[in-house]
Amino acid sequence: MANAEASAANVDEAKPDVKTLQILRDMANRLRIHSIRATCASSSSGHPTSCSHAAEIMSVLFFHVMRYKQKDPENPDNDRFVFSKRLSFVDVAAGRLGQGLGAACGMAYTGKYFDKASYRVFCLVGDGESSGGSVWEALAFASHYSLDNLVAIFDVNRLAHSTALPLEHSIDVYQKRCEAFGWNTLVVDGRDVEALCQVFWQAAQMKNKPTAVVAKTFKGQGVPSVEDEENWHGKPMPKERADAIIKLIASRIETNKSLKPKAPVEDSPQVNISDIEMTSPPDYEARDMIATQKACGLALAKLGHANDRVIVLDGDTKNSTFSDTFKREHPERFIECFTAEQNMVSVALGCVTHGRTVAFACTFAAFWIRAFDQIRMGAISQTNINLIGSHCGVSIGEDGPSQMALEDLAMFRAIPNCKIFYPSDAISTEHAVFLAANTKGMCYIRTSRPETAIIYTPQESFEIGQAKVIRQSVNDKITVVGAGITLHEALAAADDLSKQ
Amino acid sequence: MANAEASAANVDEAKPDVKTLQILRDMANRLRIHSIRATCASSSSGHPTSCSHAAEIMSVLFFHVMRYKQKDPENPDNDRFVFSKRLSFVDVAAGRLGQGLGAACGMAYTGKYFDKASYRVFCLVGDGESSGGSVWEALAFASHYSLDNLVAIFDVNRLAHSTALPLEHSIDVYQKRCEAFGWNTLVVDGRDVEALCQVFWQAAQMKNKPTAVVAKTFKGQGVPSVEDEENWHGKPMPKERADAIIKLIASRIETNKSLKPKAPVEDSPQVNISDIEMTSPPDYEARDMIATQKACGLALAKLGHANDRVIVLDGDTKNSTFSDTFKREHPERFIECFTAEQNMVSVALGCVTHGRTVAFACTFAAFWIRAFDQIRMGAISQTNINLIGSHCGVSIGEDGPSQMALEDLAMFRAIPNCKIFYPSDAISTEHAVFLAANTKGMCYIRTSRPETAIIYTPQESFEIGQAKVIRQSVNDKITVVGAGITLHEALAAADDLSKQ
Repeated sequence: MANAEASAANVDEAKPDVKTLQILRDMANRLRIHSIRATCASSSSGHPTSCSHAAEIMSVLFFHVMRYKQKDPENPDNDRFVFSKRLSFVDVAAGRLGQGLGAACGMAYTGKYFDKASYRVFCLVGDGESSGGSVWEALAFASHYSLDNLVAIFDVNRLAHSTALPLEHSIDVYQKRCEAFGWNTLVVDGRDVEALCQVFWQAAQMKNKPTAVVAKTFKGQGVPSVEDEENWHGKPMPKERADAIIKLIASRIETNKSLKPKAPVEDSPQVNISDIEMTSPPDYEARDMIATQKACGLALAKLGHANDRVIVLDGDTKNSTFSDTFKREHPERFIECFTAEQNMVSVALGCVTHGRTVAFACTFAAFWIRAFDQIRMGAISQTNINLIGSHCGVSIGEDGPSQMALEDLAMFRAIPNCKIFYPSDAISTEHAVFLAANTKGMCYIRTSRPETAIIYTPQESFEIGQAKVIRQSVNDKITVVGAGITLHEALAAADDLSKQ
Repeated sequence: MANAEASAANVDEAKPDVKTLQILRDMANRLRIHSIRATCASSSSGHPTSCSHAAEIMSVLFFHVMRYKQKDPENPDNDRFVFSKRLSFVDVAAGRLGQGLGAACGMAYTGKYFDKASYRVFCLVGDGESSGGSVWEALAFASHYSLDNLVAIFDVNRLAHSTALPLEHSIDVYQKRCEAFGWNTLVVDGRDVEALCQVFWQAAQMKNKPTAVVAKTFKGQGVPSVEDEENWHGKPMPKERADAIIKLIASRIETNKSLKPKAPVEDSPQVNISDIEMTSPPDYEARDMIATQKACGLALAKLGHANDRVIVLDGDTKNSTFSDTFKREHPERFIECFTAEQNMVSVALGCVTHGRTVAFACTFAAFWIRAFDQIRMGAISQTNINLIGSHCGVSIGEDGPSQMALEDLAMFRAIPNCKIFYPSDAISTEHAVFLAANTKGMCYIRTSRPETAIIYTPQESFEIGQAKVIRQSVNDKITVVGAGITLHEALAAADDLSKQ
């Protein structure tokens, strides 16, 4: 009986009745009108054509497929939606192209493996942004981790900012590429609400593979005399044309009914990620010699015991960054992201949305510059991710200039509100990890390869923005400021000078 | 008769005789021994295992397939080789992964469309670096532009820095992905020199498509007790083991003969890219109001008339950066790179190698941060590319924070030896473009969207590193330093103050 009901509901979801279909069509046209009105209100920049071709997709997703509480967008049980093409709808600012799908991967990974909950993740990806490699990093990630709770909708509208795209409307090529990247791939006419309902239903049935919906659309779709024309990208319509066009679109609307979104399944666990306390003081002795990057790996493992929502990501450098120490003690909370740093940042951004996890992503400090754009957009979204860069500076020696991070400081200093930690010994490194875990906003911890002496006592307390005076005397004439490994050089110089 | 000879030569190239094959095998083993010896000589870092599995590929390429003058590596007629996996062999420093194939694309584009010459381009790509999206940007670029003079060898050895890769030895998946990205794709056993000769011959016959050779290899291939084992990445062998292993490899060598590489076809045109002169002074009048980004587009078009090796690349922003002005006047020298900024920088790096072109790559200033790593590695290679970033700063207003470039200055200031131009009017913009064209090393020109007044006279001369005093009086008490659009604000303030 229960099964029969479920299957009836399933059929209804796959093939909605004629009335529902008409309401979905009407809502798409209403969205179209809203997008023309809203962009006309702005004076010189806006995307009415881009909004128009996704109108049917949005209508079907938000009023037929997705399960969420309309009045509680932060509810952890809600399905997630990421508007990768332009502005974020819900959780992360995309704006810059090619970043949304990676964030959606992080949300889906969290839903499937950490929350083990029913919520699903939908991401609208533009064909233009598919030129960017970060999209393909995300595609490879999602299939490798069998993210069957993830649906990417490729909005293939043929036209980009200044030109037609290389693949134009070659839907079959998009299909082949997505299939080759391991996705369950469904092709659909993006104007056909009935077909859209059908493919989203099919996506929900798929096990162990993410689903790509390749939707053929037309820029300015459903907007008379703008549809599929070049040179409309990012431009509002002239007011006089807008009124006539709105009237025409309105004439196609048959009902004034709306649909209520489905309620979410409320099965995500309660999570507490605030006030994570050090279970014991740092366990180092004055005579120890230890690299801060090694101490950082040990601190991450310790942090993982203090809170079970702490997760660590690494880009195929875990045996060098020492994040493998965390992996050994908490294997189920470690995500291997391979050498795809852009995607690693986006995945981390997705993992921390709705406060579901405390994420630390690790790689060589020199490799973070690969993800500058994702890091910057994360900061604009006020993300709470933490990044760790090992092997900083010239002290790595024999690995050569391509691996020496020097410009990482220039980069992170230009990131709004980013807190930068450059600890000098194992004790301050452990404190940096716990401070970062408890600090809202982005944090960056920079660690070194050489073994260095312990400077602080285990009882020393640390605060963000506070400098420590390590040596002083009444005869001092100059102040030397050091951080990280340079502090050890400054101390050696101070010792030399005090002998003179 | 000539045809019969050519076809005999062709058959010989596809199927070398038994003796040649043995020499190629022997040379692979000699390479293997060299790589073990060289990395043993370094104390703690080196890649003997990575070198070993590519030994047969390198032997066949350098002693059977490629045409070049051994004693003249800079000869423009030589075939090009890019070692994307690690250190550059010839033209660009790769070091950071995923960048070589884009550079190879630039070389192949230049060979096919600018030089219209016979030289071909070979690029060895690692399976590990294929996790990076920039590789897929390059794959899409090469097939879109039908670069049939380009061969990418995917060295699928299964193991990366810290782990086995997601696809392990799934050669069929690599094949499907390359095919879906529009490449002629050939699968080969990377240990079999005869099969390698065969596929490289097939690649040379292919018209209108680049060729991907997917080679199954084993990390540490041919090195007893190291082959296909994890945890050897980047580590030299202990000395005592190395000697025994070298002895074993040496015992497989049957000949002491070498092969002479084939001579190149000498058909690339003479090129002169030095001392490009402004054909006439800037044509602006004191009362003109013009955005520096518009003036920049006009200057590029003018520069294109002054030298026929000037090329322009753009990432689907040409109607905003005004690089479409150049495209209209020199369509055959404009490369549309779509929104794949990482690849655009790599392509530009490839285009300028061997001094074949003077390249200017354009996009919004905010978008350059996406290519920080490629820009940095370009500077380490002492590349001669020029980058232009339009829409800089907050003066773009309504486009929003994601499009406002502020951190581009922090980034380019951290690039070794990069010259940064931030011109304040149309006249200095035109000079900046000509100065950049004539300056060795990387140059960055930052332009603004608002229309601004003309500050300088057409006769004004400009030098790199020289500041101009725009207003002064004997009563001056403070110095205000401005650049770009901020200079106009400083001048307005000076006018206000002088009235008080």
